[in-house]
Amino acid sequence: MHPFAQRHQDSVSALGEEKLIAAIRRWLGAASPCAPFGIGDDCAVLPASRGRQLITVDPVIYGRHFDDAVPPRAVGEKLLKRNLSDLAAMGGRPTAAVLALTLDARVSRRWLEHFYRGLAACALRHRVPVVGGDVTQADRVVAASLTLLGEAAGSRVVTRTGARAGDWIYVTGVLGGSLRTGHHHRFVPRLREGAWLARHREVRAMMDVSDGLAKDLHALTPPDAAPALEAAAVPRRPGSDLRAALTDGEDYELVFAFAARADRETFARAWRRAFPRTRLSCIGRFVQAGAQTADTIRLADYRGYEHLRR
Amino acid sequence: MHPFAQRHQDSVSALGEEKLIAAIRRWLGAASPCAPFGIGDDCAVLPASRGRQLITVDPVIYGRHFDDAVPPRAVGEKLLKRNLSDLAAMGGRPTAAVLALTLDARVSRRWLEHFYRGLAACALRHRVPVVGGDVTQADRVVAASLTLLGEAAGSRVVTRTGARAGDWIYVTGVLGGSLRTGHHHRFVPRLREGAWLARHREVRAMMDVSDGLAKDLHALTPPDAAPALEAAAVPRRPGSDLRAALTDGEDYELVFAFAARADRETFARAWRRAFPRTRLSCIGRFVQAGAQTADTIRLADYRGYEHLRR
Repeated sequence: MHPFAQRHQDSVSALGEEKLIAAIRRWLGAASPCAPFGIGDDCAVLPASRGRQLITVDPVIYGRHFDDAVPPRAVGEKLLKRNLSDLAAMGGRPTAAVLALTLDARVSRRWLEHFYRGLAACALRHRVPVVGGDVTQADRVVAASLTLLGEAAGSRVVTRTGARAGDWIYVTGVLGGSLRTGHHHRFVPRLREGAWLARHREVRAMMDVSDGLAKDLHALTPPDAAPALEAAAVPRRPGSDLRAALTDGEDYELVFAFAARADRETFARAWRRAFPRTRLSCIGRFVQAGAQTADTIRLADYRGYEHLRR
Repeated sequence: MHPFAQRHQDSVSALGEEKLIAAIRRWLGAASPCAPFGIGDDCAVLPASRGRQLITVDPVIYGRHFDDAVPPRAVGEKLLKRNLSDLAAMGGRPTAAVLALTLDARVSRRWLEHFYRGLAACALRHRVPVVGGDVTQADRVVAASLTLLGEAAGSRVVTRTGARAGDWIYVTGVLGGSLRTGHHHRFVPRLREGAWLARHREVRAMMDVSDGLAKDLHALTPPDAAPALEAAAVPRRPGSDLRAALTDGEDYELVFAFAARADRETFARAWRRAFPRTRLSCIGRFVQAGAQTADTIRLADYRGYEHLRR
């Protein structure tokens, strides 16, 4: 669905700011608490945190993260889910979201209603209140940026650092073909899996795969090591070759380092009991830099999605 | 300064994502803690809050909140200060900021460096760490959205609701001519004043003036009342007439309701001791709806800045 209205009377600018904000509150419904705990004051008031907090921000932008082929409901869902995936990657769960919207005056009310209803449904499903926001007009832009606040689901937060040479590399689900198959907006963020993995001390470091494994894996790699991946072990979405699996991006899967000496069989059995329908693949390990063998993938030959490069 | 580079080699896209992010960290310097407490992981880790929290989000967009006449350092400062002003309006102080940037690939490195250095200087001045962010490319856009997290400076948070018919209406500073004079980016957010006012129980409701007093005052007005303003009492910036003072917007002053029966003289003396150089004006009071007299301003005759209307 095209975000722009054909006729002025169907656009957000015909509505005017006051009615638009009233409409947004209606569309968000139960996902948005009353002021001062939600939209309607200078700031939203949040309860005290129970412990350390997590915060992340990610946008969706027309022409980049979605196009006319993505239903507006799915755009709203994708915006929240992208951020939930970042929380999942640290073993977190969400506590509150705020939204900054930048809209061309010609954006249609219908498009925006579906966008908000999709966001609201996803927020209710994940029990995260949308507590605040801002709507600003700018020519030729349809962009939304969501800041998500969260907390550790358990006692531990897993960061990207902590992997050591010798550790095994695991990835959830399958990789590649995200744009082609619509996975980029249909995915389910790995919150349960992330929280479960954070409870396992053998999981030393973790992140989500958003720009393609070939690029993202660098951030997980210890300074004195290199990833040695086995091509056949990289789980691919049907129709995706190895290059697609390593570079397409928008996989929103979890990749993590598993302690070299820990019991992989017990771990795999526990995973299957907890997540019988979610694939978990050991795709290789971190080896001493220079120790890669001929049968492992040279990641330098693949390049994930790089922002701001053309 | 124009945000776009003349030559490709001076643009952010020539730098590429990895070097750009390294540069951003350098430009932010001490304003940005190391991961996982700052930029560099899936989320940033924040300490537990000391009590209730406040959260707000506001953007700056090229062509709307700034143009080539505003130095990029001032754009970065304005972005943070707009959000600080929202915190000030509730009696809050900042604890952390995250930034979502949307940039055309042709934006110049120099422009962006000055933007970040301005933001960093302002963040250090207000002791608020910039803990996370996102940079995304989009054609013909230079936009930044900042989410600010905070807490009550004292024991009390002041909201927009709470005023009663009979209450006096006060405003800090002077109004009008913000764009003309550069006040819209040179202003100092009223954080100290907001915290001080929140400690005074007679201050029943408060907000900041960002879209013009004529528009913003509605949000402070009790349902059964109307604001009766005295034209001569509205403090104007030199060169601004009453209309400018009521409708120009971007004043970033505080407007608040003061309990009808409280001691205004004692309050005014205490204010002068605390803020000898900041004007405080009693501009009228909330009266029973329909009880306005001929000598008060009819706010319906003035209209503040309305977003998304053209």
